[in-house]
Amino acid sequence: MKKLIKQKTNFLNDMLDGLSKTNKQIEIISDTVVVRKNKKEQGVSLVSGGGSGHEPAHAGYVAKGMLDAAVCGEVFTSPTPDKILSAIKAVDNGDGVLLIVKNYAGDVMNFEMAQEMAEMEDIQVATVIVKDDIAVEDEAQRRGVAGTVIVHKYAGYLAEKGLSLTEIKDKVEDLLPKIKSIGMALTAPMVPTTGQYGFDIEEDEMEIGVGIHGEKGLSREKVEPVNQIVERLIQVLLTEVESDELIVMVNGMGATPLSELNIAAKYVGENLEQKSKSIAHWLVGDYMTALDMQGLSLTFVPSSEELLVALTDTTESPYFH
Amino acid sequence: MKKLIKQKTNFLNDMLDGLSKTNKQIEIISDTVVVRKNKKEQGVSLVSGGGSGHEPAHAGYVAKGMLDAAVCGEVFTSPTPDKILSAIKAVDNGDGVLLIVKNYAGDVMNFEMAQEMAEMEDIQVATVIVKDDIAVEDEAQRRGVAGTVIVHKYAGYLAEKGLSLTEIKDKVEDLLPKIKSIGMALTAPMVPTTGQYGFDIEEDEMEIGVGIHGEKGLSREKVEPVNQIVERLIQVLLTEVESDELIVMVNGMGATPLSELNIAAKYVGENLEQKSKSIAHWLVGDYMTALDMQGLSLTFVPSSEELLVALTDTTESPYFH
Repeated sequence: MKKLIKQKTNFLNDMLDGLSKTNKQIEIISDTVVVRKNKKEQGVSLVSGGGSGHEPAHAGYVAKGMLDAAVCGEVFTSPTPDKILSAIKAVDNGDGVLLIVKNYAGDVMNFEMAQEMAEMEDIQVATVIVKDDIAVEDEAQRRGVAGTVIVHKYAGYLAEKGLSLTEIKDKVEDLLPKIKSIGMALTAPMVPTTGQYGFDIEEDEMEIGVGIHGEKGLSREKVEPVNQIVERLIQVLLTEVESDELIVMVNGMGATPLSELNIAAKYVGENLEQKSKSIAHWLVGDYMTALDMQGLSLTFVPSSEELLVALTDTTESPYFH
Repeated sequence: MKKLIKQKTNFLNDMLDGLSKTNKQIEIISDTVVVRKNKKEQGVSLVSGGGSGHEPAHAGYVAKGMLDAAVCGEVFTSPTPDKILSAIKAVDNGDGVLLIVKNYAGDVMNFEMAQEMAEMEDIQVATVIVKDDIAVEDEAQRRGVAGTVIVHKYAGYLAEKGLSLTEIKDKVEDLLPKIKSIGMALTAPMVPTTGQYGFDIEEDEMEIGVGIHGEKGLSREKVEPVNQIVERLIQVLLTEVESDELIVMVNGMGATPLSELNIAAKYVGENLEQKSKSIAHWLVGDYMTALDMQGLSLTFVPSSEELLVALTDTTESPYFH
């Protein structure tokens, strides 16, 4: 297995060191918490985070118009409550903090503990939990995947507009059940901290419904041409998304070139057209990756005027476009 | 060999179809020419292009503040003179057109022919040729690689400022010999249109000085830790770049995750610090790729106030940051 970076230790610290050296907008506090250099002086602050290995998520979205802080765990590992608390305390300006958490047991538990600790220090905190991965049948168990980035942008827009913590939480919770994602992979991610692949897969197989840590999906299939792959994903998505006007994200899993994502987008567009769906807005690129996994995910959200404005409003994050 | 997209035909057209579906700023003319929807009404227009497989180069840089058109050849294949002529005619507003060409025999010949044809139609055209890849010893033979994107941004800034064609050409030609790049790869690109890898490489080897089409480099070595790899590249670069204050690009070759580019950037920064060099500006990301090659290139340019302003000035390209 060939990798530029095979570090079993220091992967996270080295990555954050590189990120802070090269990005003038952010700085690192408490070792693994990325915050904006220009702290927001008023308005609700947004904190997200989780395990690393999903770059540019989450640290790349710490910027005006999106997050105020990202708490970075080790690769595929939840950050600890003390780090999350550090983030909350660093960004709070008295107007409250919204935690945007992907639905993984460790993340949910640790963000919840941090919320309790912050509340004991009289900081107003609310939490929203993203569960957009419809590959898992039980809705309570659904994982948070690429749709989380749409939540970052939407909440970031609402915070910039000056809405209160309660208002933002309510609006995000209205949106959350409408965001649906499903992924697929040809290869497993190589986890540098273990030196192991995330799963085993044969040369002629693909995993449909894979998670962003290489979790098992809906089914293991023989590799098909990309138009058939997107048809499979779209069929599953449209069982849960009923709108005729969609916002569509084609998310790369880390080692899928932009050319391939655009080719996939072409087939997604044609397929939806045949199904009489229109696409109000596209997001194509690496938003929520799984290290160097080859594959992609699709996220569908029913279009709304407010969400379109939120997604196209400016942000200083170089990774959201 | 596993690939999401293995198309031997239609790769280029499908990719451009996807790009134009998903990007509201651009449109396709003459099948393979990407132009801005809002044509520049005055000022010099910039045209670049070349073979495909380098995404986001070149089409991703067609945006206010960078290119006015990109002429896209088939994968790793020069575009033909008639397509280049179409681009020139589409963007010209009477103030002239600058062609930014990477130094490959086919590109240089075809852009030159298109220039002659355009001049016969009384369009004012000038050409600059980028030769930033110092892996090739003979300066006349040096390939144009990731440094080309710095030229796109610099020339785009100058054009927005309203400089004349002659002024922009002169300024770009002053900058060109100062831009130095060198690449490395762990894996070869899989060329979809042939179904073949770009070159053979063993599991424990890396190519130092590789080109963006998988051309042979300076040497074939055993894979080393990333800090030693960047030391090798920096040593070669500093034989040709003498300034103590640098602009540094860490460019991903297509299948290298952002986490790994940031880790590489950390070691580049530390290494340069030890050599008493300071870094005025960083560019980290996939700017000029080689399909799905694993690897990176470094580009060094002596810093100047004007270049810093040009590189940080806004552009509407989502891929330059």
